Amino acid sequence: MIYLDNAATTKPDEECLKLAEKYLYGDFFNPSALYTGGYNLQREIKSARDNILSLIADKENFELIFTSCGTEADNTAVFGAGRRGNVVTTSGEHSAIYSAVNELKQRGIEVRFANLNADGSVNVEHLLSLMDEKTSLVSVIHVSNETGAINDIVSISKAVKAKNKFTLFHSDGVQAFGKIPFKLTKDIDLYSISAHKIGGIKGCGALIKRKSLIIKPLIYGGGQEKGLRSGTENVFGIKDFEFAAVKKYSKIKEDYKSAKVLHRLLWERLDKTLFQRISGEDCSPYILCIGADGLRGETILHEADDKGLVIGTGSACSSNEKNRYSRTILACGVCGSLADGILRLSLSSETTKDEIVQAAKILNEVVANRKKIMA
Amino acid sequence: MIYLDNAATTKPDEECLKLAEKYLYGDFFNPSALYTGGYNLQREIKSARDNILSLIADKENFELIFTSCGTEADNTAVFGAGRRGNVVTTSGEHSAIYSAVNELKQRGIEVRFANLNADGSVNVEHLLSLMDEKTSLVSVIHVSNETGAINDIVSISKAVKAKNKFTLFHSDGVQAFGKIPFKLTKDIDLYSISAHKIGGIKGCGALIKRKSLIIKPLIYGGGQEKGLRSGTENVFGIKDFEFAAVKKYSKIKEDYKSAKVLHRLLWERLDKTLFQRISGEDCSPYILCIGADGLRGETILHEADDKGLVIGTGSACSSNEKNRYSRTILACGVCGSLADGILRLSLSSETTKDEIVQAAKILNEVVANRKKIMA
Repeated sequence: MIYLDNAATTKPDEECLKLAEKYLYGDFFNPSALYTGGYNLQREIKSARDNILSLIADKENFELIFTSCGTEADNTAVFGAGRRGNVVTTSGEHSAIYSAVNELKQRGIEVRFANLNADGSVNVEHLLSLMDEKTSLVSVIHVSNETGAINDIVSISKAVKAKNKFTLFHSDGVQAFGKIPFKLTKDIDLYSISAHKIGGIKGCGALIKRKSLIIKPLIYGGGQEKGLRSGTENVFGIKDFEFAAVKKYSKIKEDYKSAKVLHRLLWERLDKTLFQRISGEDCSPYILCIGADGLRGETILHEADDKGLVIGTGSACSSNEKNRYSRTILACGVCGSLADGILRLSLSSETTKDEIVQAAKILNEVVANRKKIMA
Repeated sequence: MIYLDNAATTKPDEECLKLAEKYLYGDFFNPSALYTGGYNLQREIKSARDNILSLIADKENFELIFTSCGTEADNTAVFGAGRRGNVVTTSGEHSAIYSAVNELKQRGIEVRFANLNADGSVNVEHLLSLMDEKTSLVSVIHVSNETGAINDIVSISKAVKAKNKFTLFHSDGVQAFGKIPFKLTKDIDLYSISAHKIGGIKGCGALIKRKSLIIKPLIYGGGQEKGLRSGTENVFGIKDFEFAAVKKYSKIKEDYKSAKVLHRLLWERLDKTLFQRISGEDCSPYILCIGADGLRGETILHEADDKGLVIGTGSACSSNEKNRYSRTILACGVCGSLADGILRLSLSSETTKDEIVQAAKILNEVVANRKKIMA
């Protein structure tokens, strides 16, 4: 099997799983318990928190709250920070933001969506024009989960603060963390990450926040995570996340370069008479979004699957939305017949050159064949 | 090590972990993905949902939403069902309910707390007297996580509906599920359960709800769990939960009887000149709450820990609350000097007779010794 749906989820790193196993079989205590076994796990969670945080931010100014997933982290940011006036976001957000801000609307908060450029990045000028003195929150996805477009959130957050210093800035960093070399800057207040997109397991994510920022929790209870996320800590998931994140960051720059080479090769090998490219030139090297005009992406996905190639048609999380077209892809200005045939090919640092060559071959064959049948 | 803090968390069942491992190492796909690997996992999640649900409820009238923990399930119930008028609950709830209803107060909902009896069960007459035509939700813990008192939620929910048929009834069943033989009845609308209290792993729980009941989600996004709990499903946790729950229910009645014998033996072996019993006669056989008058529970806990006996002083989840006394224990009418010396001994179906005998011996020695020092 060639697995090119790493933006949906990654195969958990076996080495990290082996390291984390002791938190299933041995150190199974409740970290809030007062005896040695519990107390030691509090220290283990603290080291995970510190080690993950320091990969991407300075510990003096930021802190990290473990959550059960990226979606929960996004929701904590939206409902915790978007509490008044209006909220400005983009037309290219993951459904964890899109659905959450739509719920904000129900609660009387005005929500404004900024247009996208053709590659799926946000139109920054339009985004800023939507802001005013009542904007409580701006949320901009760091790397588009559909097109791989990288939004320059360092300069966007700076411009947001210049326009209104009281506005909070959040970014969904799920497709960026562990992939795009990057550090949080002072204008970014909140940043969401997820374990299972970088070799960790499902069921663990985190919200990084500026220390001085006070937000309300989403989940109330025993006061874990400094009261910001109650519930018995998923120690196994948290430690596995730590191991996976540290491993990824140990070679993030080399991986980035290698992914760029493979990404270029993939596009090179695809038949340009069959596929149009949606992803821009400067997109994340881990995501290539393409379209086969006049075909259904789902049909191609199933035929490729039969031939041992696993790909996506866009966000896996949107498959429950029951819309024919992707919101993000339409917002890129892609028309109906091409929007129908969208495919998302997403790499990991484990993807090999052979797999890329083979994947392009399968896709060329499947689509050429389908076109022949339809002709 | 003798582990008698099973109400805080249980050692994960190794047999179930081995069965669930394939969802870490092999079937790692995103269950929302459209290809075979993803689709098959949707079916695996469905079978987990059906199998867990049918252990405790009829599938015609109830459905199950997987969450990341019991606390999230409780919060989903409180914020989803307690949306207007007033909410009635008890003074003996787990902090997942207590903190959530306190947040409801901030949102303008009146919250009324029913008194407890001396054993920690709710005073039903008082509970019902707090209800009126504006009561949107009544939430009563099934088995007290501190004293083990079993509330008869079948008759309580019936009385609640008789008083106001529009009031929703929720119960936190975390300490009951897999332990107390019981089936959901038609007057119970919502019921929370957790995996790691019955040999499953941390990071997985569920909210069972009456099918016809419409509630708002707590977490919005990709529409997983029929839109009621978005976020990539924790397949490994969910399958492990299924295996652990099915295993527990396969011998729930025998386990219950054996636990009753051990529970009786434990109390028999404890020195009555040193310990007072808080748990009632008809409490859960998995929890024995006792007090050592004039001593600090935490001191006893640490000395027992040094001798290889792991116990609790009450809810592990309350250790973050920074209150000297347990809310629940005070609500039982226990005075200060006894409330200081509260210990919670909690069994699992794996606890042995030898462990119980040894545990009582250690506790008698530790407390007698401490009293001698203080005399």
